Amino acid sequence: MINLLAIDAGGTSTRAVLLDSTGHCLGYGSAAGGNPISSGPDRAAASILAAAEAASDAAGLPPTSVSTTVIAMAGMSVSGSREWVSSPLAARGFPATVDVASDLLAIFSSGTWQRDGYAMVAGTGAAGIRVHDGRVERTADGLGWLLGDVGSGYWIGHRVVTAAIASLDGRGEETELVPLVLHAVGIDNARERGVDGRPLSLRDLVEKLYQLRPIELSRFAPLAFQATTDAVARAILDDAVSALAGLFFAMAAADLTGPLVLGGSVLTAQPVIHDRVIATLRAEGFTPEVRHAPDGVVGAAVLTLRQAGVEVDSDVFDRIGTSLARLR
Amino acid sequence: MINLLAIDAGGTSTRAVLLDSTGHCLGYGSAAGGNPISSGPDRAAASILAAAEAASDAAGLPPTSVSTTVIAMAGMSVSGSREWVSSPLAARGFPATVDVASDLLAIFSSGTWQRDGYAMVAGTGAAGIRVHDGRVERTADGLGWLLGDVGSGYWIGHRVVTAAIASLDGRGEETELVPLVLHAVGIDNARERGVDGRPLSLRDLVEKLYQLRPIELSRFAPLAFQATTDAVARAILDDAVSALAGLFFAMAAADLTGPLVLGGSVLTAQPVIHDRVIATLRAEGFTPEVRHAPDGVVGAAVLTLRQAGVEVDSDVFDRIGTSLARLR
Repeated sequence: MINLLAIDAGGTSTRAVLLDSTGHCLGYGSAAGGNPISSGPDRAAASILAAAEAASDAAGLPPTSVSTTVIAMAGMSVSGSREWVSSPLAARGFPATVDVASDLLAIFSSGTWQRDGYAMVAGTGAAGIRVHDGRVERTADGLGWLLGDVGSGYWIGHRVVTAAIASLDGRGEETELVPLVLHAVGIDNARERGVDGRPLSLRDLVEKLYQLRPIELSRFAPLAFQATTDAVARAILDDAVSALAGLFFAMAAADLTGPLVLGGSVLTAQPVIHDRVIATLRAEGFTPEVRHAPDGVVGAAVLTLRQAGVEVDSDVFDRIGTSLARLR
Repeated sequence: MINLLAIDAGGTSTRAVLLDSTGHCLGYGSAAGGNPISSGPDRAAASILAAAEAASDAAGLPPTSVSTTVIAMAGMSVSGSREWVSSPLAARGFPATVDVASDLLAIFSSGTWQRDGYAMVAGTGAAGIRVHDGRVERTADGLGWLLGDVGSGYWIGHRVVTAAIASLDGRGEETELVPLVLHAVGIDNARERGVDGRPLSLRDLVEKLYQLRPIELSRFAPLAFQATTDAVARAILDDAVSALAGLFFAMAAADLTGPLVLGGSVLTAQPVIHDRVIATLRAEGFTPEVRHAPDGVVGAAVLTLRQAGVEVDSDVFDRIGTSLARLR
């Protein structure tokens, strides 16, 4: 029996599954972030190896039983040498050759075995792909917090804090986001002003926020969903809906049908975003079947099977899902 | 005769003037950036010392002839210990005590000897102050590229590159900013797409831009002024005008009259911004006399004289200006 190793290496966690060539999952493991850009190659490789060994241990099968390894990870990492991860895996007995797949294609393939359709993810970042014949045919956004990721958790969180700051600074409308943001960072919402005439709370807030890495502003995104009656928060979410619908339209092709697989907490866990994005698509004549994918591990298994020459149909896809569910 | 040392320590350059207590400027010197936050305290102190010694050399007067030193610099640096700069100055014979003043108050005082009014600066950053009785009574924005500086060169430049990126990515309108931005970074405006379906020019552009420090995106601001017939560029400048007028309204008080002193290239060198901001103020009933200040060195001299107990009236102010002009 030849086994396969499928790895979904994300920025904050890594998932690995060892499966046989019929799609039966035999062992599952997880570890910390496995993206070489955000974690650095050494830590990323260590996480990927830890998840792979946990999967192999759980299956009770040695690394040498694996014939094919596919790692799904963010686009930027797909090109270039894979030595950083193939060497540590080979040193523990896994195959010396590693294939890399797009993390967005893994999300797509976590939601469907079909070979045409769309995937859109909005978590900390935001990106989408159009998939044709099992391959990425078009990509939109996913260009990072400074230059893109429009409609993402970072984008919403950045809007939340800048709206609160503008309000405290007298430049923006009054908003419920002010007390929510101040409370979130542990600053009193007091009115005293310092020698420069600024509210002391504003000075303290700006100081605290510049101590964060910019991407960490995504942690303020949930406040926009809390301030349900606030006009400023509503405008931020309206813009996020437009941005995410725009992301779909940027990659959509009128003649390409197939499911739309959604991932990331902003798109899947926030009905105020999810339902309105889908409604906007329908208003423009796009009526894809919508599915959710919590992560890309099922899709990584699909891509690994295909890499090994196995055709993945509805039966195989269902087998991956049900057998993996029993292991997680 | 007791002499005074006035220093205008900016992020990219530092100016120093040695003057007598009648406002007669005797020596001028300049050096590299003197802001301890952007340059680090050691390099900032070295620049300040170099400018001070150049001014003292040019005047042919020893550092020991100086009785009062005032350094104007950005707000964040005003608080805290001044050891980093007072010790190196004292070691060369300048007074051991250094007073620090707001860089915005120095800009204000470069434009007028009056003690009430407003100053607004929009260069790489953007900030404004309301001045009453010679002191800063209210401050607006100046909160940095990530959280504020709305309408600044950074803000315009960031909008310029994200508009070009969105257009290349199929999410934004077509815009003349695409060829302008690509040309500015030396990338061919070709249409080929890579394996992920993205234009290769987009991938190269994003890669180049992430190699910059975010604040360096301000270098793309001039492209918005070049693309005079482009709707996307016009919308960016419209928003900048609104933002800068909003900055004024945030700090303005209906009963406080006095001149409005403008600084920074966005506000003073771009009529399309300057004239429309002033028109917006007038439409709301604010009709300040508008003056421009190229930097804060005259104002630093004004503040130093006041620190030494000298009253600065119209005659003294004019004397500073004319005597300094002969030295620069």
